[in-house]
Amino acid sequence: MNGLLASIRRDVAEEPESGIIELVNHARDRPDLIRLWVGEGDLPTPSFIGEAAIAALRDGQTFYSHSRGIPPLRRAIAAYVARLHGVAMSPERISVTVGGMQAVMETLQMLTGPGDELVYTTPAWPNAAAALRIAGGVPRAVPLGFGNRGWDLDLDRLFDACGPRTKAIVINSPNNPTGWVMARDAMIALRDFARARGLWIISDEVYQRLTYDLPQAPSFLEIMEPEERLIVTNTFSKNWSMTGWRIGWLVAPAALGQVYENLNQFSTSGVATFLQFGAIAAIEGGEPTVKALIDRCRVSRGIVAAALAGLPRVRFVPAAGAFYQFFAVDGEADSRALAFRLVEAGVGLAPGTAFGPGGEGYMRLCFAASPAAMTTAMERLVKGLG
Amino acid sequence: MNGLLASIRRDVAEEPESGIIELVNHARDRPDLIRLWVGEGDLPTPSFIGEAAIAALRDGQTFYSHSRGIPPLRRAIAAYVARLHGVAMSPERISVTVGGMQAVMETLQMLTGPGDELVYTTPAWPNAAAALRIAGGVPRAVPLGFGNRGWDLDLDRLFDACGPRTKAIVINSPNNPTGWVMARDAMIALRDFARARGLWIISDEVYQRLTYDLPQAPSFLEIMEPEERLIVTNTFSKNWSMTGWRIGWLVAPAALGQVYENLNQFSTSGVATFLQFGAIAAIEGGEPTVKALIDRCRVSRGIVAAALAGLPRVRFVPAAGAFYQFFAVDGEADSRALAFRLVEAGVGLAPGTAFGPGGEGYMRLCFAASPAAMTTAMERLVKGLG
Repeated sequence: MNGLLASIRRDVAEEPESGIIELVNHARDRPDLIRLWVGEGDLPTPSFIGEAAIAALRDGQTFYSHSRGIPPLRRAIAAYVARLHGVAMSPERISVTVGGMQAVMETLQMLTGPGDELVYTTPAWPNAAAALRIAGGVPRAVPLGFGNRGWDLDLDRLFDACGPRTKAIVINSPNNPTGWVMARDAMIALRDFARARGLWIISDEVYQRLTYDLPQAPSFLEIMEPEERLIVTNTFSKNWSMTGWRIGWLVAPAALGQVYENLNQFSTSGVATFLQFGAIAAIEGGEPTVKALIDRCRVSRGIVAAALAGLPRVRFVPAAGAFYQFFAVDGEADSRALAFRLVEAGVGLAPGTAFGPGGEGYMRLCFAASPAAMTTAMERLVKGLG
Repeated sequence: MNGLLASIRRDVAEEPESGIIELVNHARDRPDLIRLWVGEGDLPTPSFIGEAAIAALRDGQTFYSHSRGIPPLRRAIAAYVARLHGVAMSPERISVTVGGMQAVMETLQMLTGPGDELVYTTPAWPNAAAALRIAGGVPRAVPLGFGNRGWDLDLDRLFDACGPRTKAIVINSPNNPTGWVMARDAMIALRDFARARGLWIISDEVYQRLTYDLPQAPSFLEIMEPEERLIVTNTFSKNWSMTGWRIGWLVAPAALGQVYENLNQFSTSGVATFLQFGAIAAIEGGEPTVKALIDRCRVSRGIVAAALAGLPRVRFVPAAGAFYQFFAVDGEADSRALAFRLVEAGVGLAPGTAFGPGGEGYMRLCFAASPAAMTTAMERLVKGLG
């Protein structure tokens, strides 16, 4: 490490590049590659959303915005959340953020001082785990188990990982990368444990709409009161094909409104004003878009499952939620090396090592692309793994 | 403090609302108010910039972006910085951020662990001082002095404030709120001190183009080598009337490229893709826009100075740089109360208390508005202070 890197915070200096981004950067100049390593589909944002932002931009909505989001967007999100979960929801509980990522980072900054511990499940979305480390807390990983019925969480292991310095439990269901969906009774048990111990629950519910056995995934918002220690993070990225917009939101107790206003103000000073009008259009007029996305993912998920089922080295259970298929490849000791090899076969998959402990030996494939693209991708994958 | 606030990080819970935002929120519903409290003018973004973003949006540039900014934007910024300062500048040194605010916050996160100290001058832009506290470092304030020749920094006081735990010195020149411009020889002396002590310099040069006695303000980029301990933060907000876009950048040693890529990835995952095409248009075609802004500010600055000169209770020296006039009002012990009173007189000014130690007794006025608006505003201010 040179002198410059030695002179900055060690945990920041030593934080590795995302194991996904490493591959993305490696293969940027390959036009024919089918990229299934990042969590997004191949559809641009629907034009009715873009045109709403364009109208606001041309109308001169280019000045400093409200730190927590413009009031009509916060009202629209509150109405959407209330409708989805059948709960009362005040706009005072909503803060708009720069993607779900900022919602996660700010929440970690808010909750963790030096030495504070956060318990989370692995394999995990690498960004959340990295944010844990950068926020300065001590991450405690609890592995999900993989068996014949798919992925599952042993709640006793989770509870045992919580000690006197634990501040929060981070749950991401439907889960990236495994597709695990936490059941409502497990959520209730976790809630009761957290209540008894005074712990916060940080629930990343970005994929809440994307489920294949249930109409939608259960949410902690449905089983907890407005002033409890619960933060739910979400995003416009997935449901409305808006990954490149960088707009998300969080639901928090109203008493934390000023705290999040400050955290937004002092880290990014809010989301681009005119883009927020696009987000209003998405959430108010985008139900057909969401339903079409879910249907498309269901078809592509089937194509993936059919192809993987024919590969003797592959072990998997079709994802219960989110839009990723996580699968083990027996005989491949180095999933990162396999990912680089598959680039040569024309298909981009994320290596399990990118998802921390418990990821080695697995690969993650995003099936949000069109059924046609998925069919071609699976032909290449079958050949590449053959 | 209720139980929820008691259960989060104390320094985050206790961070007060920005003393500017408090007034902005107080007076949102007053259509006739002339607002001079925030650091922006009254012009929307020039349409050639907006149309470039619109074309990219309609072209489907709505997918995840490069964490540090798209390469053509980083090249355009590097070329601009090189031209402005007469130095060589590699795009590898440039990272695009969500406004200058994120550039500051990430830099503080990178440099400061628990107990690390940062030395900065006051009165100060409240967001930078708040970010210092949220990043978990220990801020050490060094007051600027105000005399007949305007604001100035006593370098010996600054050096004396640096102790064994000091990691960085934060300089903001041209200065918000005082208008102070650091002279090149003072920069050289500070550089030499920082070199000898192994300290980082964080130089917020957002207002570098906005000077009234010099063609432009000196920059640390002109007197330091590419691999020295220097971070320069900047923004598209001011020069090109893009405050509501939330796009900024920083210049760092190339060796920190991966660190900033990670910090961007794990805090916001970058700036909206299609907006970056607007930023390219701004920086490549926006010189007439910048020159017109500077000319307009110069005229409005003169209107402000002429009006204030007629007020016996007011002490000030016309701002050397930036677009703020900071002035003392004798006999007003509570500048926050005065700011609320001036709202009733129809003019919105930021109270000196919003800028931390050394701010009480002063008011800040942004003169980026049109000369016509400034003339009306000053009539109201003269009446309000009379």
